[in-house]
Formats: sequence, C-alpha cells, structure tokens
Amino acid sequence: MTIRRVFIANRGEIAVRIIRACQGLGIESVLAVSEADRDSLGARIADRAVCVGPASATESYLIAKNMVAAAVGTDCDALHPGYGFLAESPDLAQLCADNGVTFVGPSPEQIRRMGNKIEARRLAEEFDIPTLPGSTRVGSYEEASAVVAETGLPVMIKAAAGGGGKGMRIVTGTGQLRDEFARAASEAGAAFGDSTLYVEKFIANARHVEVQVLADSHGNVIHLGERDCSLQRRHQKMVEEAPAPNLPEALRDKIREAAVRLASRFGYRNAGTVEFILDQDEGRFYFLEMNTRIQVEHPVTEMITGIDLVEEQFRVAAGKTLRFAQDDIVFRGHAIECRVNAEMPEEGFRPSPGRISVWQPPQAPYIRLDSHCHEGYLVPMFYDSMIAKLIVYGTDRAEAIDRMTRAIDRFHIEGPATTLAFQKRLICEPAFRDGTMNTGLVDRMLAGNREGKQP
Amino acid sequence: MTIRRVFIANRGEIAVRIIRACQGLGIESVLAVSEADRDSLGARIADRAVCVGPASATESYLIAKNMVAAAVGTDCDALHPGYGFLAESPDLAQLCADNGVTFVGPSPEQIRRMGNKIEARRLAEEFDIPTLPGSTRVGSYEEASAVVAETGLPVMIKAAAGGGGKGMRIVTGTGQLRDEFARAASEAGAAFGDSTLYVEKFIANARHVEVQVLADSHGNVIHLGERDCSLQRRHQKMVEEAPAPNLPEALRDKIREAAVRLASRFGYRNAGTVEFILDQDEGRFYFLEMNTRIQVEHPVTEMITGIDLVEEQFRVAAGKTLRFAQDDIVFRGHAIECRVNAEMPEEGFRPSPGRISVWQPPQAPYIRLDSHCHEGYLVPMFYDSMIAKLIVYGTDRAEAIDRMTRAIDRFHIEGPATTLAFQKRLICEPAFRDGTMNTGLVDRMLAGNREGKQP
Repeated sequence: MTIRRVFIANRGEIAVRIIRACQGLGIESVLAVSEADRDSLGARIADRAVCVGPASATESYLIAKNMVAAAVGTDCDALHPGYGFLAESPDLAQLCADNGVTFVGPSPEQIRRMGNKIEARRLAEEFDIPTLPGSTRVGSYEEASAVVAETGLPVMIKAAAGGGGKGMRIVTGTGQLRDEFARAASEAGAAFGDSTLYVEKFIANARHVEVQVLADSHGNVIHLGERDCSLQRRHQKMVEEAPAPNLPEALRDKIREAAVRLASRFGYRNAGTVEFILDQDEGRFYFLEMNTRIQVEHPVTEMITGIDLVEEQFRVAAGKTLRFAQDDIVFRGHAIECRVNAEMPEEGFRPSPGRISVWQPPQAPYIRLDSHCHEGYLVPMFYDSMIAKLIVYGTDRAEAIDRMTRAIDRFHIEGPATTLAFQKRLICEPAFRDGTMNTGLVDRMLAGNREGKQP
Repeated sequence: MTIRRVFIANRGEIAVRIIRACQGLGIESVLAVSEADRDSLGARIADRAVCVGPASATESYLIAKNMVAAAVGTDCDALHPGYGFLAESPDLAQLCADNGVTFVGPSPEQIRRMGNKIEARRLAEEFDIPTLPGSTRVGSYEEASAVVAETGLPVMIKAAAGGGGKGMRIVTGTGQLRDEFARAASEAGAAFGDSTLYVEKFIANARHVEVQVLADSHGNVIHLGERDCSLQRRHQKMVEEAPAPNLPEALRDKIREAAVRLASRFGYRNAGTVEFILDQDEGRFYFLEMNTRIQVEHPVTEMITGIDLVEEQFRVAAGKTLRFAQDDIVFRGHAIECRVNAEMPEEGFRPSPGRISVWQPPQAPYIRLDSHCHEGYLVPMFYDSMIAKLIVYGTDRAEAIDRMTRAIDRFHIEGPATTLAFQKRLICEPAFRDGTMNTGLVDRMLAGNREGKQP
C-alpha cells in the first residue's frame, strides 16, 4: 500500500518533524491542533490543520476517538501518533485499525503488552534477556518487604503502568519501605489509574543505555546503535548522545543483539527503543522497558547513521520491506542532544511559559535544531515545556561536546527562562566529559555537589 | 600558533559560512563589507564588519592592499579569502605574509604556480599525472594549427591565466581554427590582461570529476573523496554531487591517488581541489587544474564525510597536524548541491537582482541550505548571482535525487527569478538520473534537445 495523506495526532516539535518527513516523502499532512495551537508553526506548514478541542490536552490531544474521527473526516489513510499523548495508547491503534486507518506504529496488542511493565519484563525473560533482580509484582507492603529481603537494598519501587518518573521511589533504608510504598501506590493510582507496583534492585552506579531498532512487517529487524541517556533529572532525560561512550565493545554488541532479539522474537514492526540499565560496577545490563514509538532523542541516532527514522516509520507502516540490512548501517561520528525546556532551573525547574521575544538559534553545518518555536511564539502553559532540541554532530565525542558548548553560547532566547545554561554546566562536568557519568549525576549536582563527583 | 581573530575578505554565502566556522571554533570574525553589503546577514552575524569600499568589487573586494590594511587595522591575526575575488591572488597571500597575518591558504608561490594553467600542467606531468594531449602554449594561429595536426580535432582553446569559461573555445572543424583562436585571445586579454592561450584535445563524452584534498604543513595529505560537477552551463557548474556516480572503483582509486600525489609532491598546505576531466569512452582521466582554496561545492563532501572543511582550513593554517589519517575518513551516503542563482534561465540566464519578497527554504534533517539571503534582502546587481546553495543528503544517489526534487518543489522564493526550476529539470533528465551524463548535457538541453540525449 501507499500512504497518501497522514493525520498527525500530536503537537510541538515532533509535529513539525513529522510534517517535514511527509513533505520529503510527498505525503500530505493533516495536523491535529488544540485551540491553543491554531497558529503554531505546525499548523502553518501542514497541508491542513484540524481543531480537535480546547487547549487542555485531556480535552484534545488525549481523546483517541476524536483523533480518529478527525483522521477519517479529513480522508487520511494513516495516522502518526508522535511521542507522548496517545503514542502508546492501544485504544488509538485499535480505533485506527477499526476505521481502516494505517497506524504508524505496532499492533494494538503489541502496544498493550509492552506498555505493561510487568508483561514486558516477562517477555524479556522469555527471550533470555536479563532483567533486574526483583519481583514481578507487589500488591502490598508485606510482599514488597519479602522482595527486599531477597534482593537486598537499595531497591526501586515503580508503577507497572508507568513512565516519566511518576510512581518511582528509591528505598535505601529498611525503615523507609512502608512509607515509600504507600506514596508510590498513591502516585501511580493518580497518574495512571492503576496503582500496581513492582520492586526491583536499584543500581547505584548505573547508566541508561537504549538501543534504537527498526523492524518491518516481514520479520526483518535491525538496530541503529545505542544512545546513552544517563543525564536525567528525576528520571526525565536532559541530554542524550549516540553512540554510548566508554562501553566495552563486547558489551555494546551484546546490548544491541539483545534489543534486536527482543524486537525480533516479539514480531515487532515500527521504529522502537529497547531501554536498558547498565551496571557499570558489574559490567552487566538489564532490560528496563521497550518504547513502541519514535523517541524524543531519535535525532542523535539519525546524525550518526544518516537514516531518517520518521521516514522509515512511514515505509514500514505501509508494509514496505526494510531498505537496509544490518551491514548497510554505517556509524560515523558522535551526536549529542540537549532538550531545551522553558523552565527555571534555579526554581526547581518550574515551567516558564510566555512569549518568546528573541529567538536566535545557532547555525552551522553540524548543528540541527528541531523546534516549533520562533520569535513572537507564545509558549503555552498547557503542555510540556520542551521548546527545542539542540543537536550537534562531531567527528568524535570531544568535538561534539565542544561544539555543543559553543552552540549553547550562541543560542539566544529571550522571554521564557530555559534550561540551556544548566545543560552547558552538565556537559562541562568532568564526569560527563570523560564519559564516566551515571544516572545520579544531575540530581547530585542539584543537591549541591557542584563538582559532580561520583559516589 | 592559535588563531584568535580572523578577517574575512569575501561576501555572500561563503562569508556567512566562514563566520559560522569561526563561531564553532571560538574565533572572532571581522567581515569586509562593501557599501552594498553593509546590512548583509554576514555583517549582522560577524563580530565586527568593516567597510572596505564602494559597491563595485573592483573598488572593494578586489583590492588586496585595502583588505590587508583592514585586517591589520582590526588586529586580526588571520585572513580567510573564501572563493572568488582574491582567493587565488598570490599578491593577497604575499601581503598577508609581509604583514604578519596568517593567510588561510597555501603560500603565495604555490598560488602563483597553480594559478598559471601551463605551469600547473607542467607540474602534473612532473608528478606523472596524465594531462590532456596538446600543447603547453601557443603564441599564434600557426602554432595552434601545428598542435591540431598532432592531436586531431576537436580541440579546446583555453586562456592560460583563465577560469570560469572565459577565453574558452571548442573547435570542431579545421576552418574554424583561425577565427576561434583570435576570439579566444581577445577574450583572454580582456578578462585576465593576459592573452596567452593553449590548445588541447577536446573530450566529447567527458565528465568533470574533482578530488577534495586536505593537507597540513607537516607533509600529511589526505583526500575526502571526489565530486562530480559535470552539469555545467558554459563551464559554470550548476549541480554538483559526491561521490561521483558510475565510476569504476579502480578508476576512482587512481583519480584519488593522483590528487593526493599532486598535493603531496607539491608540498601543498590547505584544503584544495584537483580537477580532472574523465574520458568516459576511454576510461581515462586527465588533470585539468588545481584550485588552491575552498570551493563553492565543498558542502557535498562535508555531507558524505561529516568533516567541516572550513574548520579544518583554520586548523592547518594555524600549523596544526591533520586530525585524520586517510583510514579515519568514513564515506557514507550521497549528497547533491544546486547552486541557486538569481537568474532567468529562459532569457539566457540574465541576472535577476532585486528584493526578495518571499523566502521560504525547505527544511528537513537531510537538507542543508548555505545562504546569506532572507525575506526582504535586496540581491545586489554588483556581484555574482548565486543566492543560495541547496544541499541534500540521501542514503544513496536515488534517494538524494528524490529528496532534491522535493526540496526544490518546497523552496518558495518570490522577487528575483531563480534557476531552481531549471535545476529540477536537469536532475530529472534520464541521463543524470542514471548517472550517464556528460559535460555537454546542460548546453544540449539549452540548445533545444529537451530529452537530453547523449550524442
């Protein structure tokens, strides 16, 4: 089949990114817009924009049936969900299928299974992929306590339905377990309508390494290398890079192979990301979860492979065979991305919406900026605060870091406060520069350890 | 040594390009501007702009002593000449040397020797690089006639001091030789103040293939692959690509090796380009000339190698050792560039200066636009008519061509007429699509052969 017109059920930079992929492929684009996004860059550059509800996401971007109705009403033959919002909603994928709209993603069943963290973990185990020691599910404090007796402290409590750090607690002392369990259950219930939790071993000197996979509907699966996303603030990624630095080649191969095996055995179709936690002290890796959608940080992979992931998503969704065998993938150089948020780092990263009065991004052949913003743009308060992704390429990691620091210096934004200066500090941290960071670096910096020393 | 502040003796897109490289390296930039360029994008983004004279290039950008005086006066420790204007003036390089300003290029002596086409040819022969059968110099019709008796027809008459197609004539019949010789001598005299000519064999089924080299002052020379620039209108390049398509690998290696040998034996330092003519019928190549500067089409090489050539120019000019060995260079994908000129193709490519009322370039991760233009910019009538370089990358040549055609469709310019639609026709020509074009394709198209059939 051929995709002729696609409905984009998203907003912000990823909507712009998808529209540009459509333009590149000669596909028409219809963009869903809330009332707050009527005059957005996406609305201007899409072939058509359709208002799907008021500014509040729960009344617009999060209503699957309205999205599919709008897609059908505008005669779209496909729907791209982007990331966030309904990107991992099995209901959206099912509604698409029911209405003859090609969903640019995997099957509803695959989304549902991978979306449940306990089921995903069970699948990984079935495919002989290491998972973190710990329980599959805990229904009570007593059950959690029994797990801790087995794995030892510290442990992490997580929402089974979760993501984005909600419902996650780290427990380091036995005395904290009861309170933290109660808090996590309550947070998970509020955030996901499902207070199911699980407990797992917590890795102190950990890195977050994830593998980009690409799979077609004919059983072909390749990886496009891994990304390191260890610079996280409360489990929210701030800086991402590809390839992962300081990874022994044998371990790198094993992680990549595990990701391909998971996607392959699962019969996956679409771009996807298999996330792992890397225990640097032990040189071991553990499956965390699989994201069945395009990710925010996909550009760093595109920079080092030269492959347009969103275009490839459309191709495999249309039933085409992958254009690349694993041996065709040539990795070159190093890429880093900073997620630029309109936030005040010095005030607990409180969102800083408002009008952008000056918007002068840096430009150079090795800089890529993915953004929906421009001078005069009003950053709305209704959605997440990311206003741009600043991506740089270097022939090696040191050059990429140098170029990123200079690119940040030359990125002039006035109006909203941004995280840029904080990210410059981050990538200048000795532990980041020499690639020995772990996932605790950002929070330690914020806690006052300005030297960013590793524990 | 370290370059701290650089004087840019150029204008237009290459001035912007060089300023961005300076920003990336943390070098301050001072831009020479004529009175017509005071409000140019380059003037706005450089750290400082200095007016070097009136709009007319002969009274501003072409006066070497004024350029060096301005560089010294603004305390610059280096000067980048860009391309065109004084980029191949040995006098400018000498004045820089005399004033303690690092010239971002080779020595005055090297510029002088390579700038003289007869001397350059003699050097190539000395280094065992094939040159076109023909004379080294002809002073009269009688001498030219004697050469033709030896090489056979067709022949090409060229200005020894020349470039850009001026003073070039192709002679296909014996009866034309006397008239064409006189016309070429007169054109060469008018254009270069030197009517010295030479005559060489003319290759009917020819391609223009050139090799990008990079050399430091410590004797290290590498190549960054070759470019094909066969789509020329009266010896002016219109579309360039890298790598060269349909080149047997053994021949590709030989051409690259010849270029490295030339630069190496010559003791060259700087980025440089060794141009060859490829006889497709015979599978042979011949040295044409060496350009001792950055070239307009350098971005296609950057796209397939990931290396920033202008940054590397600064590094080698500062005496640094090349950061790459030949084996470090990873070639990936295919890149195509269209030189977008403000010209009217249907009126003999007459320049079309004027105010740009709409300027909406296409954007996508695989598109690069090098330009000094913007909405509201007044394209001056004083300089060459190039307003942008549109560059696309693809994982292979077919994808790059598809992306270029779509990128051209999405490039909306109003105000001046442009060559874009003509370039779209060019890259859709069957002979270009299948990589069997030759240097006569454009002129044949213009002569009315809309099918672009090869002779």
